[in-house]
Amino acid sequence: MASFFEHHVFFCLNRRETGDRPSCANCGSEAMQEYAKKRVKKLGLAGPGKVRINKSGCLDRCEEGPVVVIYPQGTWYTYVDETDIDEIIDSHLVEGKVVERLLIDRN
Amino acid sequence: MASFFEHHVFFCLNRRETGDRPSCANCGSEAMQEYAKKRVKKLGLAGPGKVRINKSGCLDRCEEGPVVVIYPQGTWYTYVDETDIDEIIDSHLVEGKVVERLLIDRN
Repeated sequence: MASFFEHHVFFCLNRRETGDRPSCANCGSEAMQEYAKKRVKKLGLAGPGKVRINKSGCLDRCEEGPVVVIYPQGTWYTYVDETDIDEIIDSHLVEGKVVERLLIDRN
Repeated sequence: MASFFEHHVFFCLNRRETGDRPSCANCGSEAMQEYAKKRVKKLGLAGPGKVRINKSGCLDRCEEGPVVVIYPQGTWYTYVDETDIDEIIDSHLVEGKVVERLLIDRN
């Protein structure tokens, strides 16, 4: 059976006030998730069979963050700003091409 | 490349105070996510290459909830209580067998 969402995107929004691990929310992940969600909707990509942009709790890869994972492909990206988010949307979500330069796991 | 987590489990914890859609958090999803996380850890299943139990925002299948999705398989379940969570853990996560009776999407 096909995946309910073609691309299910989870942004880690975990916020740590203290502690010895970095925190995605302290790297602006809330704003980037909101930005991605709005842009995907504006492009008409949102919905069943298409794309879902989700908030998530800690994805446990804090040291490599801020992180976003796209399923069912299982592709993990990091990002800095809207430019990176745009590239993930335009390349991965629209064209189905992995954005090599933003990959966390390199072959 | 193998998936970073063999089973990446997302529990919808979205809470709606009002509105015309049901809310997973109002069906006890917070307690069930916490229960699953503790049990998976106790069983030694948690970690890279194994299982990650995550919190997520609204998965947009509110009417079929409370919902949980497991990637990269893309298997969607609903559940009522710890008995159902135990079955998902013991069957899907440990033995790799889908729990047909809890599936949202039936063939």
